[in-house]
Amino acid sequence: MPAQILKGKPLADKIKEQTRKEVEELKQKGIEPFLVAVQVGENAASKFYTDNQRKNAEQLGIKYELRELPAETTQEELIKYIEDLNNDDKVSGIILQMPLPPHIEAREVQWKIAFEKDIEGVTPHNMGLVSFGKPRLAPCTAVGAYELVKSTGIDLTGKEVVVVGHSDIVGKPAALLHLNDLGTVTVCHIGTAKAGKTPEHVARADVLIVAVGVPGLIKGEWIKPGAIVIDIGINEVDGKIVGDVEFDKAVERAGIITPVPGGAGTMTTAILLRNVVEAAKWQAEKR
Amino acid sequence: MPAQILKGKPLADKIKEQTRKEVEELKQKGIEPFLVAVQVGENAASKFYTDNQRKNAEQLGIKYELRELPAETTQEELIKYIEDLNNDDKVSGIILQMPLPPHIEAREVQWKIAFEKDIEGVTPHNMGLVSFGKPRLAPCTAVGAYELVKSTGIDLTGKEVVVVGHSDIVGKPAALLHLNDLGTVTVCHIGTAKAGKTPEHVARADVLIVAVGVPGLIKGEWIKPGAIVIDIGINEVDGKIVGDVEFDKAVERAGIITPVPGGAGTMTTAILLRNVVEAAKWQAEKR
Repeated sequence: MPAQILKGKPLADKIKEQTRKEVEELKQKGIEPFLVAVQVGENAASKFYTDNQRKNAEQLGIKYELRELPAETTQEELIKYIEDLNNDDKVSGIILQMPLPPHIEAREVQWKIAFEKDIEGVTPHNMGLVSFGKPRLAPCTAVGAYELVKSTGIDLTGKEVVVVGHSDIVGKPAALLHLNDLGTVTVCHIGTAKAGKTPEHVARADVLIVAVGVPGLIKGEWIKPGAIVIDIGINEVDGKIVGDVEFDKAVERAGIITPVPGGAGTMTTAILLRNVVEAAKWQAEKR
Repeated sequence: MPAQILKGKPLADKIKEQTRKEVEELKQKGIEPFLVAVQVGENAASKFYTDNQRKNAEQLGIKYELRELPAETTQEELIKYIEDLNNDDKVSGIILQMPLPPHIEAREVQWKIAFEKDIEGVTPHNMGLVSFGKPRLAPCTAVGAYELVKSTGIDLTGKEVVVVGHSDIVGKPAALLHLNDLGTVTVCHIGTAKAGKTPEHVARADVLIVAVGVPGLIKGEWIKPGAIVIDIGINEVDGKIVGDVEFDKAVERAGIITPVPGGAGTMTTAILLRNVVEAAKWQAEKR
């Protein structure tokens, strides 16, 4: 029996609707959630994302501004710009759009974002909160994957959770979120692949989360029958968008699987906008 | 052939000697490393630790003060006390001694320690740095275990690292430290035990790190022949100190194993004192 297809849109829509209501409530209290995206230099791909951010934010009643700084902005100037946004009480959330020009050390600047405005969850403080099981503004894609898993109704206690990919912003926080629910979590990556161990770890997984960015990396035949498979990869192959999991074969073995496109990726913007509301609340508490 | 016994003292002594030299160098630059331990109420066990801290700190030339606050100190008063230490330029590092009286929420207070003075690595910021692979003031026992593993000369890339215990201050940071070296890391805990899966995870481990606090939890016969076994457990059984690993049997299978006492625990104070120096440097950079 082929797997149940777990689309992202229904849950994302639910989160957005809840967020829209919370925005209304905040406005009644005189708090206007306001998202500022900072972009340095021009970037065609980035325009697609920022247009989409604006549309989604405005649909939920969240004020959105894209601040476009010239490509020759220095790191010091950019840090100063971020610090001014940190100090601006009207600004609830800050996104620093990637990529940045090569003369800027992205992390150095991201880490200057005040953690209460860090709606992408890129600061050490917010990652520490994820590790401590007290996430507040956590990385959006990782949270999206985790909430999709939870939406299936699974009790993670003692389940074998295997995360393939150990990026700071997806794999690691996804692993920590599932660990905090008492899943037995394994993180695989290039080291695992080099040791030839990826297939056997995948074969153990009750819950498999893949975030690498290599099309078809995970063979369908590796997957444990009945597993929940969350594919976070988004790759273009011959003009078609595909994930990191060999979908056609995986769907025959998995119990539940997310499609690409239309799966885990769909959650990211919804979580981002929910984070804007959470950020606005966090700042209000501190005043 | 029985395992090689990996004692903590030789490496701890090396770290202490290096730290002593660094303290001297800092003093020549006019920086005097100064550790303040804050204790609320009296505690017999705590006195053993603080006496030991003082002795070790002073041996390395680090100034040490134990500040004993009355048991009836409120949480607000304690936070104010910590904030005053944060703002005192003479103080390099702060330890908040556990246990605290039950009316105080330990975490609420610990998280107020300025991260540049958080020599126990208990703040979200410092845990986030561990997660991002940029540890600076990381939890001492986890770092001690990691450095013992590294001292064996093992290349962790693609090795199966299994951490049993997922505490915020030992298991999780130990897992993240090994993950950042491209070990394939699995974290086991009570959920794993309930699912009956601990033995099979232990059996896969090239590197096994155990930090639970249950004597003899890990049976010797589970251990993979030739594995590196780091036992962080310290338990008293019939007046004798034992670890979490069934040592007598484990020593027959492991390649390298730490004893209890005299193993991983021995590293903690050395790392703590090295952290005081690191903290002093971090603050000097910021001035």
